[in-house]
Amino acid sequence: MRLEVGCIIELECAQPTPLLLLLRPRSGAHQWIARESYSLTPQVPATEYLDGFGNLCQRLVAPTGSFRIESRSEVIVAPSEDEGQGEVYVPVEALPDDALLYLIPSRFCESDRLGARANEITWGRAPGYDQVAAISRWVHSRLRYLPESDPMPISACEALERGEGVCRDFAHLGIALCRSLTIPARMVAGYLQDLEPMDLHAWFEAYVGGRWYTFDPTHPDQNKARVILALGRDAADVPVFNQFGPPVTPSGMHVFVREMPG
Amino acid sequence: MRLEVGCIIELECAQPTPLLLLLRPRSGAHQWIARESYSLTPQVPATEYLDGFGNLCQRLVAPTGSFRIESRSEVIVAPSEDEGQGEVYVPVEALPDDALLYLIPSRFCESDRLGARANEITWGRAPGYDQVAAISRWVHSRLRYLPESDPMPISACEALERGEGVCRDFAHLGIALCRSLTIPARMVAGYLQDLEPMDLHAWFEAYVGGRWYTFDPTHPDQNKARVILALGRDAADVPVFNQFGPPVTPSGMHVFVREMPG
Amino acid sequence: MRLEVGCIIELECAQPTPLLLLLRPRSGAHQWIARESYSLTPQVPATEYLDGFGNLCQRLVAPTGSFRIESRSEVIVAPSEDEGQGEVYVPVEALPDDALLYLIPSRFCESDRLGARANEITWGRAPGYDQVAAISRWVHSRLRYLPESDPMPISACEALERGEGVCRDFAHLGIALCRSLTIPARMVAGYLQDLEPMDLHAWFEAYVGGRWYTFDPTHPDQNKARVILALGRDAADVPVFNQFGPPVTPSGMHVFVREMPG
Amino acid sequence: MRLEVGCIIELECAQPTPLLLLLRPRSGAHQWIARESYSLTPQVPATEYLDGFGNLCQRLVAPTGSFRIESRSEVIVAPSEDEGQGEVYVPVEALPDDALLYLIPSRFCESDRLGARANEITWGRAPGYDQVAAISRWVHSRLRYLPESDPMPISACEALERGEGVCRDFAHLGIALCRSLTIPARMVAGYLQDLEPMDLHAWFEAYVGGRWYTFDPTHPDQNKARVILALGRDAADVPVFNQFGPPVTPSGMHVFVREMPG
Repeated sequence: MRLEVGCIIELECAQPTPLLLLLRPRSGAHQWIARESYSLTPQVPATEYLDGFGNLCQRLVAPTGSFRIESRSEVIVAPSEDEGQGEVYVPVEALPDDALLYLIPSRFCESDRLGARANEITWGRAPGYDQVAAISRWVHSRLRYLPESDPMPISACEALERGEGVCRDFAHLGIALCRSLTIPARMVAGYLQDLEPMDLHAWFEAYVGGRWYTFDPTHPDQNKARVILALGRDAADVPVFNQFGPPVTPSGMHVFVREMPG
Repeated sequence: MRLEVGCIIELECAQPTPLLLLLRPRSGAHQWIARESYSLTPQVPATEYLDGFGNLCQRLVAPTGSFRIESRSEVIVAPSEDEGQGEVYVPVEALPDDALLYLIPSRFCESDRLGARANEITWGRAPGYDQVAAISRWVHSRLRYLPESDPMPISACEALERGEGVCRDFAHLGIALCRSLTIPARMVAGYLQDLEPMDLHAWFEAYVGGRWYTFDPTHPDQNKARVILALGRDAADVPVFNQFGPPVTPSGMHVFVREMPG
Repeated sequence: MRLEVGCIIELECAQPTPLLLLLRPRSGAHQWIARESYSLTPQVPATEYLDGFGNLCQRLVAPTGSFRIESRSEVIVAPSEDEGQGEVYVPVEALPDDALLYLIPSRFCESDRLGARANEITWGRAPGYDQVAAISRWVHSRLRYLPESDPMPISACEALERGEGVCRDFAHLGIALCRSLTIPARMVAGYLQDLEPMDLHAWFEAYVGGRWYTFDPTHPDQNKARVILALGRDAADVPVFNQFGPPVTPSGMHVFVREMPG
Repeated sequence: MRLEVGCIIELECAQPTPLLLLLRPRSGAHQWIARESYSLTPQVPATEYLDGFGNLCQRLVAPTGSFRIESRSEVIVAPSEDEGQGEVYVPVEALPDDALLYLIPSRFCESDRLGARANEITWGRAPGYDQVAAISRWVHSRLRYLPESDPMPISACEALERGEGVCRDFAHLGIALCRSLTIPARMVAGYLQDLEPMDLHAWFEAYVGGRWYTFDPTHPDQNKARVILALGRDAADVPVFNQFGPPVTPSGMHVFVREMPG
């Protein structure tokens, strides 16, 4: 399947403002970037580097006044979603070295405090994929979905206490519960087809049966196509839009995902 | 100066228990490992890998019954501590790529919530080293030192609310305050000469004036030698002793730091 | 300056043929990729990974029959070329760790055999940039330029013996001579504006005065814009088009570089 | 099995001489470093970093006059050597990304020139381990072993032409032949038990059947224990002792490997 995805961000900056962006998707096992554009208006110097998670990070300083960032991509993605029922739990000692990072608690995923809860949720489930699927469904049923993000990000435990959150919070809670069962889980930021209202989205991946599988507790039942922008431990690692200095609120943000013919 | 440092951990495991350890110091700009031993009793298979922060990580499964881990090193360290008074703040856009990671909030360092506080503490200080020094002194005066760690780790904000903590909490609060001023700061786990009572210790480094400087809010005035075991964003990244599965409490732990002649 | 660059490769494969390509430029300090497309006809599954030098590498299997690869990019590059006259030699002990790799002999750059020659060429030159400039001029005057590449790649010493070569050989000889003076030097594959006849090009960078500078012994006098595709030790590291199995000769190859308005 | 291995190098330097050493073995899947010492006499500042292949590299400047380097390790290694008969060839498209590097020709391994020869040697062998074993035996029978290294290193093709070489040349030829069959192969520098005369040794690993297997064309029949010091593409990547500036010949070099009780 071929998708056109994109994101347009408009800012008004009272002063020059350093930005760190993760808006350029990388080709990988899941997706092939067939076409792409990334424009800055006005054009300012920008550099790009790879972070420790393999994400392409754009660094630049937005000038005083109006500034516009536009990233568009045509991406070929595998048509079907993951189907991993029955995939087994991988014991800690058999995990690949680079998955261990995703067992450890992180800024927004206090997995060190959720072990009892995770055991309750997955009671009777086969260790592995089926536990993660149960966690994803539980998070979906337990949290009320808020269409608008709180400006102050909250953690998995805080979201659980409030009983509501945005997609990011759903993902954090799913991740934290998986890790508390020593199942590696990581955050994904990206685009989801037919999301309503359309916006950048967040979900998670869990490592079972020898590879990473996709789970989306916000939209668990659907079979829609996804484009990955960035991977990390939680939202703190994948700051799709990160700004340093006096806060700047985007004056406009437009995200789109369209299926293309052929 | 030449130090002999070491750590002996004794466990009783009711079942085979996966461990992840960061107990082998690396030679680097700060320290040269002249001699080292790392023994496991009984000897079990163990492997080692490098994590994304450059730490050497030991992986093994402790067997049922008594298990003993002993790591000893003779380390040559530079004699004097950092003196960076007046070193300037590095603007975000001028930071090296690999320092940006240490600007972002992490599991135990909620820098996204401490900006106002950090501004108060550093009011009137020259941007850079002098701000960090003010933060380190403030943390030292503000938190009461607890000799014993809470089994449940707490965050910088929680430590601040309680008004007390262990060395790890002092470091977390210092780190979180630095990051809120867009000064990169990272956690260090290691050995400190003449620590009383002797134990593994934690402090932090901040990036000002073009390099990393050492700060220790728990022991700010002293000029003692240090050996670095591991670096990371916070205690969640540097699990000097990390255990997966049903909790196992060390039945014994002995840490030593001795200055050697010559 | 804004350039449109691109490369179209057409193959006829008698059997499925694994390919490794380095045809997707990365944004970095030198260049910003404003727009890009990468198409495979017929569309086959492809993945991408980063090699140890930071290049984006595309992996795919070309099917039996006709196959077409087309990569196009619009790239914003800094308008002027490097001017580093007088930049000083950096002693080995002061080089950054990641430059040391580029001191060591490699497949096509036998720097271990060219020390005496390099000393002759740079006699009387100030250590650093001026030595490299002298080397680049010497290579330019010493080798006769061949418009067509030998199908069997040759080394720096072999090119020197033959007295002729393609751009790749010019670069190899420059690199080998620099390294023999303990000046780090690395291969660049990419696009050069107004190259005649137009093709993919190769030049080199040398590390003096604290950063990498561009040198092109094939086209030393010109001030044309460049787009980097890949960096490595020599041509063996930057196989812009690498094919495994029974040899396949491209039935067509078209490269273009156009300056864009604005 | 527990081995004590070590290397003592004595130098006389007419001027301060930068050195790059790979004499500190790392723990990994193959070996556990139980005890280690690394001393410099006189003690000079030294730092250590990781190269792109994962080797620990020591950097220092040997002072004018006598200088002594001594590295000793007690290493626990798996008792038996690899037995991989019948392990299958992995097609290029199924290789892990990080093995592709070891398919490409390198400084001393001109695999691009040895395809016909490799096909002759492995005629009738099952693709994979059995091909590599045939290559290793062929190299052993074809090259005459020289106990003393030529001061000027030679390549695989040069060794083949001369019909003789040191262990390094045997390994290079084996590696080059494997790569010409698109079997990844890499150089290993290390210690071999009971080598006669005792010295640092070189052998190679080939990737078949999903993992790296050990082959030693210099000592193919034996079942002795090995300790790995460094891995790379060929001898140019694993400069166990690398010196920059005017050549310095070690005035003494002593290597030992002893089996320890228990």
